[in-house]
Amino acid sequence: MAALSAKPLESKIAPSLLACDLSDMAGEAARVMDAGADALHIDVMDGHFVPNLSWGPPVIKKLRQRSDAFFDVHLMVSDPLAYVGPMADAGADGFTFHVEAATDPCDVVDAVRAASRPMVVGVALRPDTPVEALDALWRDGAFLPDLVLVMTVPPGFGGQAFMADQMPKVEALRRRFPTMDIQVDGGLNLATVEVAARAGANCIVAGSAVFKSDRPAEVISALRDGVETLALHKPARKRGGMVSSWRPRAESFEHPP
Amino acid sequence: MAALSAKPLESKIAPSLLACDLSDMAGEAARVMDAGADALHIDVMDGHFVPNLSWGPPVIKKLRQRSDAFFDVHLMVSDPLAYVGPMADAGADGFTFHVEAATDPCDVVDAVRAASRPMVVGVALRPDTPVEALDALWRDGAFLPDLVLVMTVPPGFGGQAFMADQMPKVEALRRRFPTMDIQVDGGLNLATVEVAARAGANCIVAGSAVFKSDRPAEVISALRDGVETLALHKPARKRGGMVSSWRPRAESFEHPP
Repeated sequence: MAALSAKPLESKIAPSLLACDLSDMAGEAARVMDAGADALHIDVMDGHFVPNLSWGPPVIKKLRQRSDAFFDVHLMVSDPLAYVGPMADAGADGFTFHVEAATDPCDVVDAVRAASRPMVVGVALRPDTPVEALDALWRDGAFLPDLVLVMTVPPGFGGQAFMADQMPKVEALRRRFPTMDIQVDGGLNLATVEVAARAGANCIVAGSAVFKSDRPAEVISALRDGVETLALHKPARKRGGMVSSWRPRAESFEHPP
Repeated sequence: MAALSAKPLESKIAPSLLACDLSDMAGEAARVMDAGADALHIDVMDGHFVPNLSWGPPVIKKLRQRSDAFFDVHLMVSDPLAYVGPMADAGADGFTFHVEAATDPCDVVDAVRAASRPMVVGVALRPDTPVEALDALWRDGAFLPDLVLVMTVPPGFGGQAFMADQMPKVEALRRRFPTMDIQVDGGLNLATVEVAARAGANCIVAGSAVFKSDRPAEVISALRDGVETLALHKPARKRGGMVSSWRPRAESFEHPP
């Protein structure tokens, strides 16, 4: 599906909310969206698939009432199928699950496609998972998800160092899927974004780099520059004219030319 | 231990943060503490012990930076032992775990007693669990926990109706432990608090009743009146002179006489 799409490859910068001031999530969400982010990356951890427990549907649902941002939800949970309905109800826009956690990953994709709210479907790979794990996600010659997330740290905690040894996976995926969204998550900053973009990643999750900065707009702009300058496959439209499909509700927040 | 304590029985009103405006937890915490609450009840759900997933250590740790309230943490998780360290690190003041979830509940109590941060130890009973499940928590003639939480709804979600059929458990516990903290959680409001207090509960968790009210101070005061008027065992000191041991850091927030 994605491989057959005519949509241009876009840079998508998604600050990870786990790095924000958690006691004021709505304010923090507004701050980074105003600074030009394309989406909020929201890590859901259940204390089972990963040792940490972050937050779940009630928090996301409440945040939805105070934010129009694209909610890019990354489910680090051991039973992703059980979260499809709650995430649709909570207002998620993206549903990225771990292939390692799914009994049948196609079932999860099917459930998301059938959910009450349209959601982008992503599939995530832990650092110890090879790209071959995605072979289970083809049907009738089509790759089912819209996005692949290559974790560049072991999932579970923020603030870890970027694993450059994951780049061959990004390169292999980009060769196979020239126009699909390929996301990297973990240790991304102004230095490491170049490595990831050169390998072919166009969607960048960044936590501390954005939220701990006094100038998040400059960081987001620089991350975007890194992707657009270095990604193997350039966007079809030039920078400044790009419209991110992840920002349908936030037209006023287009990043500056 | 608790049964041998000379401390007077106190009314303790703990608004449940799950019912607050989750996008401004720090503000909501301050609002109910200013309104006279003794503690914040913080429900940690892992999506396994209960179907819902709420939040975990990162959220509590961040809230701790902006609140001096007593954090009464209720762990609805399938491996409470694994949360003792993270909760101490996050700044919990109370650690209440479910007896149904513990392989050996005494091990959990021991771990909390040995934690880096002093925490009140509570043990919780689901509605389908009889008080006899607490028999495993005695050692050398002493009951190990400081508090028993009798759930008055099936744990996992807010806004459910109070189960009066749990009151015989509260009565049995109060007969056995005249001065121990007995907490009820689920469906508590100005109507049901009387039923719970009459049975012997002195610690009241209330979510919607407090947070959805325009006048939380009046609700908290009325809940406290319900406990102090009706609890089987009256406080040793009269209302107005009571000092809650759960409010060591918030002396300026004593409820008015």
